Amino acid sequence: MNDLAEYTWTVARQARDASRQLMSVTGGQKNAWLKASAQLIRKRAAELVQANSKDLEQAPNYGLTDAAIDRLRLTDARLEGIAAALEEVIALPDPIGEVIGSNSRPNGLQVMQVRVPLGVVFFIYESRPNVTADAAALCVKSGNAVILRGGKEALHSNLALYQLLKEGLRETGLPEHAVQLVETTDREAVGQFLKMSEFIDVTIPRGGKSLIERVAAEATMPVIKHFDGICHVYVDKDADLEMAARILINSKCQRPGVCNTAESFLVHRDVADAFLTLVGPQLEKAGVEVRGDAAIREYLPFAQLATEEDYRTEYLALKISAKVVSDLTEAIAHINEYGSHHTDAIVTTNWNAARRFTTEVDSSAVIVNASTRFNDGGEFGLGAEIGISTDKFHARGPCGLKELTSYKYVVFGDGQIRE
Amino acid sequence: MNDLAEYTWTVARQARDASRQLMSVTGGQKNAWLKASAQLIRKRAAELVQANSKDLEQAPNYGLTDAAIDRLRLTDARLEGIAAALEEVIALPDPIGEVIGSNSRPNGLQVMQVRVPLGVVFFIYESRPNVTADAAALCVKSGNAVILRGGKEALHSNLALYQLLKEGLRETGLPEHAVQLVETTDREAVGQFLKMSEFIDVTIPRGGKSLIERVAAEATMPVIKHFDGICHVYVDKDADLEMAARILINSKCQRPGVCNTAESFLVHRDVADAFLTLVGPQLEKAGVEVRGDAAIREYLPFAQLATEEDYRTEYLALKISAKVVSDLTEAIAHINEYGSHHTDAIVTTNWNAARRFTTEVDSSAVIVNASTRFNDGGEFGLGAEIGISTDKFHARGPCGLKELTSYKYVVFGDGQIRE
Repeated sequence: MNDLAEYTWTVARQARDASRQLMSVTGGQKNAWLKASAQLIRKRAAELVQANSKDLEQAPNYGLTDAAIDRLRLTDARLEGIAAALEEVIALPDPIGEVIGSNSRPNGLQVMQVRVPLGVVFFIYESRPNVTADAAALCVKSGNAVILRGGKEALHSNLALYQLLKEGLRETGLPEHAVQLVETTDREAVGQFLKMSEFIDVTIPRGGKSLIERVAAEATMPVIKHFDGICHVYVDKDADLEMAARILINSKCQRPGVCNTAESFLVHRDVADAFLTLVGPQLEKAGVEVRGDAAIREYLPFAQLATEEDYRTEYLALKISAKVVSDLTEAIAHINEYGSHHTDAIVTTNWNAARRFTTEVDSSAVIVNASTRFNDGGEFGLGAEIGISTDKFHARGPCGLKELTSYKYVVFGDGQIRE
Repeated sequence: MNDLAEYTWTVARQARDASRQLMSVTGGQKNAWLKASAQLIRKRAAELVQANSKDLEQAPNYGLTDAAIDRLRLTDARLEGIAAALEEVIALPDPIGEVIGSNSRPNGLQVMQVRVPLGVVFFIYESRPNVTADAAALCVKSGNAVILRGGKEALHSNLALYQLLKEGLRETGLPEHAVQLVETTDREAVGQFLKMSEFIDVTIPRGGKSLIERVAAEATMPVIKHFDGICHVYVDKDADLEMAARILINSKCQRPGVCNTAESFLVHRDVADAFLTLVGPQLEKAGVEVRGDAAIREYLPFAQLATEEDYRTEYLALKISAKVVSDLTEAIAHINEYGSHHTDAIVTTNWNAARRFTTEVDSSAVIVNASTRFNDGGEFGLGAEIGISTDKFHARGPCGLKELTSYKYVVFGDGQIRE
């Protein structure tokens, strides 16, 4: 075993041991750690800003854009935000120990399904240092040990934050390896962790598609994946067209670079004329490039002709594909075929249309008469989220504390044996 | 694409399309299919017995033991059992459409987490033909399309059953590809299905360890795995020793060849003398071979010396490993280290010991004062089960209808947009 292999094995084994200890830690202890960590971040802000300046100095060498450098920067205000976010996790209910199902059996056995931690989470993420604190908070609050692997661009900032989180663990008597940060930037380390299914229960990669694909291909444990959001707004023949325009513009323009932004819209042919006449100038004014089929271009001369590929593209920009459909059935079939099963909205006043759309569209969120932008842990009331799953297995959509848990059966008897 | 690749692609694509149609099928329709299938099995029993006789003729060529041949045999009584099992699934509550969580947001959005089918299940199993009907029933009742891959030893029986299940689908208007049986015994077909994560949502292999390992290594979609059951009974210092002996004998002897049988027992040193004196003759009488540490052998002279490997072995036979422990902490550490996180029981009258054991033992079922043999879907009140998961992700322990589901967020609004 070389040095790197020994290091990663030790980290993973320590995480596993810490996760065993975390099984009997109380909610009060976990909250005390969150509070202590928030206070340390406030008290030692200068230290963190100092460490962050090293990352900022090296940022141009990593080819970071100005926008990326800005996201990397820690200021007193941002550190206050990180501390406040830890305190918000205190307010979330402890998921562990919840009885999520139970059965009293005829022989007197009492069978309970009890929520327990998953165990060890391996979390891989890109450069923003606030994610270090957020992810540690969510994992530990849900009773999991976490191995954090941040981007090399934020290494000094992450290490400094990690020191404080560790001090918090010591101060409050939590297992010292409940949170560990991978201290090497060697990419090989990731590959080694991905092989350790005996110690790591789930890997969560947060970053670009190529990272997620690499992790999914190499991992020997389950992975919570976050792939494309090719989200639709469908304007039904019975839509309130003013509302439809407002929802479409918000879904596309409020934050075009994120996964729950609309990348395509469909409009029923009976209202295509009226709707496109209304929304066309709004799209143009907002600077949205439209790629439509021939029917769309009849009403929107500024639109370009869409290719088959456009309907399968996540633009993450002020671009949108569009199509006129002949009925609800065609709309649903199009969304299930071309979409990415992330978030799809219908605008309608028709009961049957809404009911069919929410039943038959196979997406993590199906929305009636609201913006696609609402598919988000905070907006759904889950509290903070560690990611949005595009899987159907284990967790779908925003992943908060509950999605970081498993369950066990706890059975109480009085000497029952099986006949 | 060669013929086999075209065949498997077509089967998987048809399953995916059927799963889309199943999203809007009612519970009544699914139950009507179960009823029709049960009636067809009763009415056409002669046909099924006839097909089964072809498998029985060929069985010796496959090297099947007499016991395996007996399990393969279909009789009128067994066919009645298969039909009755389908009718039992009718009585189980429909899991689909259940609202498993909800949130009314301050902006008026109504957010619901609604249970939906997983989609397409690829189910791989060994030779007993009754599993064909059971698995189809559970998958369709939970709204999933299923691709069944049975053992070659039961091919004629499975094909005959499959014809009737298909007739039932046609009679009751369900999608005709909701149930499909892989009609080739080519092993390569399995490998091809395991690559089709675009069509198949989960694979469930039921069979020996090598099958499950192969499937887990090759599958590109999630797999519900069922590995070893290295289950323990721990006899605490505060145990009712008569009860402990009864539970240990039942856990080991009631059905020694199954996953939830005890493979090891631990006894607190303070009661080792009394307990072993009591249970020793019972174990001997039951023909159980004991492999113990030196302390065990002081009290049980007929025991052999256990090796380290014995404590990690699933015997599936009238054999058990044993160890004297100095306290509860050692017992819990031993179980977490040597066990397989399947089913572990404590016998105690001590509140604190029971509470620590159920919290700190990391197993799918932790049992106080009852036999390990109760970890089973039927015994836990889940109804029929499609398998027992040794994973912590998605489903843990017995998998019934709910474990074959996912969820989606259904959001109702009145024109809300995000600010």
